[in-house]
Amino acid sequence: MSEYYLGIDLGGTKILSGLADGEGNILTSYRRDTKAVMGEKHVINNILKTVEDVLQKSGIAAGHVKSLGIGSPGPLNTENGIIIENSNLPCKNVHIVEIMEKELGIKTVLENDANAAALAEKWFGAGRDVDDMVYLTISTGIGGGAVIKRELFSGYSNNACEIGHTVIDPDGPICGCGNHGCLESFASGKSIGRMAKEAAKSKQSNLILELADGDLDKIDAAVCAEAARKGDKTAAEIFSTAGFYLGIGLGNVVNIFNPQLIVLGGGVMKASDLFLDKALEIMRQNALDASLSVLEVKKVELGGEKGLMGTLAVAMKERLVENG
Amino acid sequence: MSEYYLGIDLGGTKILSGLADGEGNILTSYRRDTKAVMGEKHVINNILKTVEDVLQKSGIAAGHVKSLGIGSPGPLNTENGIIIENSNLPCKNVHIVEIMEKELGIKTVLENDANAAALAEKWFGAGRDVDDMVYLTISTGIGGGAVIKRELFSGYSNNACEIGHTVIDPDGPICGCGNHGCLESFASGKSIGRMAKEAAKSKQSNLILELADGDLDKIDAAVCAEAARKGDKTAAEIFSTAGFYLGIGLGNVVNIFNPQLIVLGGGVMKASDLFLDKALEIMRQNALDASLSVLEVKKVELGGEKGLMGTLAVAMKERLVENG
Repeated sequence: MSEYYLGIDLGGTKILSGLADGEGNILTSYRRDTKAVMGEKHVINNILKTVEDVLQKSGIAAGHVKSLGIGSPGPLNTENGIIIENSNLPCKNVHIVEIMEKELGIKTVLENDANAAALAEKWFGAGRDVDDMVYLTISTGIGGGAVIKRELFSGYSNNACEIGHTVIDPDGPICGCGNHGCLESFASGKSIGRMAKEAAKSKQSNLILELADGDLDKIDAAVCAEAARKGDKTAAEIFSTAGFYLGIGLGNVVNIFNPQLIVLGGGVMKASDLFLDKALEIMRQNALDASLSVLEVKKVELGGEKGLMGTLAVAMKERLVENG
Repeated sequence: MSEYYLGIDLGGTKILSGLADGEGNILTSYRRDTKAVMGEKHVINNILKTVEDVLQKSGIAAGHVKSLGIGSPGPLNTENGIIIENSNLPCKNVHIVEIMEKELGIKTVLENDANAAALAEKWFGAGRDVDDMVYLTISTGIGGGAVIKRELFSGYSNNACEIGHTVIDPDGPICGCGNHGCLESFASGKSIGRMAKEAAKSKQSNLILELADGDLDKIDAAVCAEAARKGDKTAAEIFSTAGFYLGIGLGNVVNIFNPQLIVLGGGVMKASDLFLDKALEIMRQNALDASLSVLEVKKVELGGEKGLMGTLAVAMKERLVENG
């Protein structure tokens, strides 16, 4: 008898659910609006309906599904399957695993979305051939996940790999977490946007402000990238600065994890032409040769489907680790 | 039939060898001068003789010894059992595991001394009750080792956990590794000594120089600690500065590893009254609450025997992980 696996990617605007076979091939997927504004009960109903739709569409009975993986932004209590809070959803202390198992009769596992994305790249993306990798997502913030000997490294209470919140300069800018000089405060999309705003305000760059229609609030990393590509030196320097600090962070990752592979993803990587060379140069300057000599750095391979693939990797964990 | 295990701690001045039972109780140990000046062949012979002495003294035949653990400073190729170099010994590319297995007929495992010390604290010291811990040794340099799910985390090529060489301020002082602002360049014994020398040179502190008999070359972390304890404000500030940066490093360790326990050791910890409170205060400021709430910080429990206990933990690995 074939084995099937279900994944649910919980987003602020959409719930994406998919059914895969034992090889991780997605057979059916279904997208539904989260309708977060309608409250917790409605969101949970929407999750359940999405799963039912997928099962119906594929003609597979729930009894043939071996397990269900759910990916959600944190903070979570993964051990007990609880969404403690979700900044995009009206969810507070939702015992999602218990609800799913009761309603669907399918063994359910909850994982935070950055870890799920790391697993997606490990099993179905850029990391499929390696056993030890670190995944970094450079988007509004900087998140990460590490895979050690083919298993997620989650730490004692599932809070490991907060690489974005390692301090790389105590005199640096204030970070969302309240500290000064976290990697995230230098090299995230938010921090690139902040530097671009400052440059526009202080008239160091007119083009940045022009590209944002003269509206400071519209300035973000994407606007800064556009300005840099149009020849604005200040904008290019902002990316170079972000690249420098990302390189410091990557060097630290290499010296701590000695990974076989670093996989870089996240929206800011769309502008990687503006900062990645600098980051890799600084990483190579800072990391120890013994670790650099075995290291590869790659961009993510999975696109929009990464979230869903991650939840499937979570569902398929035992099978993947045993057979992979 | 009882099981026995052998450990060899390779130091620059002494070779310490011990025989333990299956519980890790040292039954016999033997110390021999390394006599490094007499060359590689002599050192290897001394290692073999030390093992023979231990076996003879305990009346146990080599055939009853299940395995032998060797601890050595790096760089090593642990996978192939090779001491690539040892700054204290005349050893270059010595296939030590092959030699031991051929001469003694005992399965042999090589491990770097910092990792062995981490394992010693995990199995026989401060970490005996935990599964996830990070060990940091603050001595001339800063080294470390992490235990994840009761196993050593060694990285893809056995170079993980170079926490001393993570950059925490790119504008910081130059480190022995060539980078600027590594944790080691701020908070190691060597860096405390450097700051103390600078303070003496620039006449910020007369007491430091006085305690070193007016000889700048005699100033080290111990002299600085003595001055601080005698009321020298500059010396106390030097330790406070080291504590601040150690706190940044510890905060990063917490955010990356989310460990159950951090164990602190090394010679500089003799002066922990002068910097540890500051370090823990800064660590708590910087690390994420979710990880801090499960964290304990302890000092090492093992003393001079740690090196030997570590090599025994290396030898006993399978037994410990299975039964521990």
